[in-house]
Amino acid sequence: MPPLVLTMGEPAGIGGELAFAAWSRRAAGVPCFALLDDPARLEALARHLGQNMQIKPIASLADAPAVWNKALPVLAVPLAGPVVPGIPAAVNAGAVIRSIERAVELVSSGAASAVVTNPIQKQVLIEAGFRHPGHTEFLAELAGPGTVPVMMLTCPGLRVVPITIHQSLKSAIAELSIDKIVTAARITAAALIRDFGIKRPILAISGLNPHAGEGGAFGREEIDIIAPAIEQLRREGLAIEGPLPADTMFHVRARQRYDAALCMYHDQALIPIKTIDFERGVNVTLGLPFVRSSPDHGTALNIAGTGKASPESLIAALMIADQMARTRAAAPR
Amino acid sequence: MPPLVLTMGEPAGIGGELAFAAWSRRAAGVPCFALLDDPARLEALARHLGQNMQIKPIASLADAPAVWNKALPVLAVPLAGPVVPGIPAAVNAGAVIRSIERAVELVSSGAASAVVTNPIQKQVLIEAGFRHPGHTEFLAELAGPGTVPVMMLTCPGLRVVPITIHQSLKSAIAELSIDKIVTAARITAAALIRDFGIKRPILAISGLNPHAGEGGAFGREEIDIIAPAIEQLRREGLAIEGPLPADTMFHVRARQRYDAALCMYHDQALIPIKTIDFERGVNVTLGLPFVRSSPDHGTALNIAGTGKASPESLIAALMIADQMARTRAAAPR
Repeated sequence: MPPLVLTMGEPAGIGGELAFAAWSRRAAGVPCFALLDDPARLEALARHLGQNMQIKPIASLADAPAVWNKALPVLAVPLAGPVVPGIPAAVNAGAVIRSIERAVELVSSGAASAVVTNPIQKQVLIEAGFRHPGHTEFLAELAGPGTVPVMMLTCPGLRVVPITIHQSLKSAIAELSIDKIVTAARITAAALIRDFGIKRPILAISGLNPHAGEGGAFGREEIDIIAPAIEQLRREGLAIEGPLPADTMFHVRARQRYDAALCMYHDQALIPIKTIDFERGVNVTLGLPFVRSSPDHGTALNIAGTGKASPESLIAALMIADQMARTRAAAPR
Repeated sequence: MPPLVLTMGEPAGIGGELAFAAWSRRAAGVPCFALLDDPARLEALARHLGQNMQIKPIASLADAPAVWNKALPVLAVPLAGPVVPGIPAAVNAGAVIRSIERAVELVSSGAASAVVTNPIQKQVLIEAGFRHPGHTEFLAELAGPGTVPVMMLTCPGLRVVPITIHQSLKSAIAELSIDKIVTAARITAAALIRDFGIKRPILAISGLNPHAGEGGAFGREEIDIIAPAIEQLRREGLAIEGPLPADTMFHVRARQRYDAALCMYHDQALIPIKTIDFERGVNVTLGLPFVRSSPDHGTALNIAGTGKASPESLIAALMIADQMARTRAAAPR
């Protein structure tokens, strides 16, 4: 398998130090990756942290495995200005974006097996001219027209897919539709088969209202939107449970009855996964032509440069991306 | 301390067999309670289950402790018709209601230390003329005018209070108000002091929207409703954290930072508690002049009469009610 690529993310954030921590755990099974970043700023960060990191610029991603045991392989993406941990600078936005673009080029050409992205600070990119709704949407655009990305969050024992994400709860309810549910379910089922090796995935679809609406007593979205979407998906041959009351879907026995839970809004999906496993949640983007994962946290500017940030989520993201890429590569065409 | 009283609940449901199971665990510290039920139907249920239960009708609740070690004490509430497990009958609705009324009389007079209620089947009571929105509202009416009941769910390590409960998510958002939050928070804080012995309780108040609205980007309820409610509560001297993003409030470290979480809607409160501890959740009604708890499940008609239902939640409800009553009794007036 080719190596993974890990993007720089916001250089004033915790991405660099997390990459160091992940590389340091290579003996524990962290898969080989190359970091798309500025070698000089990484050297400075290692000195700042007082860490004896070996950082090795490489000319080609193919050189990463030979370097891996002795040093962190880095494909150079030069920064335009200095990095102060905790203080993002618009001058470096171009490099942040180039790191993402280069990652997509490498995975699209087959040189990389998957892309893992460090968190970005969207606001500073927007100040520098970034015109995409977010990180994932930018990746989808780079992947090509017609790409519909679907966010899945995963931790040991649970996978969740929110149908609506970063919008007010009121607007999430207003915009809920049969089409949104059907599209997300199809993409999720296809990815569970191709990238997770589950032959016949079972999807659990939540209700929107308390007790899944209790037959219309507490809202009609289950009757008018969710149940018709489930009917359509079943006609297409998918195995679907639902609409299920969201509060009883996520305890340990309930989780064993499905492979992924589709939820109607952000917190319905994120409350259970972050409650169960706050440190090891991973964000996986389904529906892209390549494998992409990222840690399920932000840039953590308040602790950047201190070495205190937990690398667990990034390590889990690297391991899941590697496993997904292997499953996809092994699947019959 | 006087004994607890446990209501019959729906006799065709699992309440009777759970009471047997709880009494059977008396050596493990289940506090003394009397069941308000029909002794003949309990004898029949024990035979049906093949259980060698000792059932002892008592004339006065004060007799319960003397009976407790040898038999389940029962204060007779005669049923009007036969009981078929799994099939509620309107003919018995009167007895279900009388059991609740008698429990409130006993706790109001001081003969009982607290009320624990078995689950009812609301629909069959409504058919028989019950005109209250629910079990808790009926208890509040029996308690007297001006009583505002607040539902709290508790399991080891977490207490949650939903500000809105059994209504559509859309209507819950529309009806969210500063007053609702302030009232629930005051009642919760007072109960944590009086019934849980927490000198200076810390309340965590959730946001409504993803990331607690992210400064207005994902909805304005945090700015227009929740933050002003928090300001008012702080002016009254309460210790409040929030508005907090709901998805990061409930992991094990986050839970240690507060004594109870106030949530904006049903699933925001119930997803975390049922995910963490599905079996031992207990429903506690705050704001009543007496202590009341109930198991956090329904009548389970589908398994009633089989002996399969888990008594864990009822046992936890009995133990919490006993502990709350002791704390309240020990508090300086």
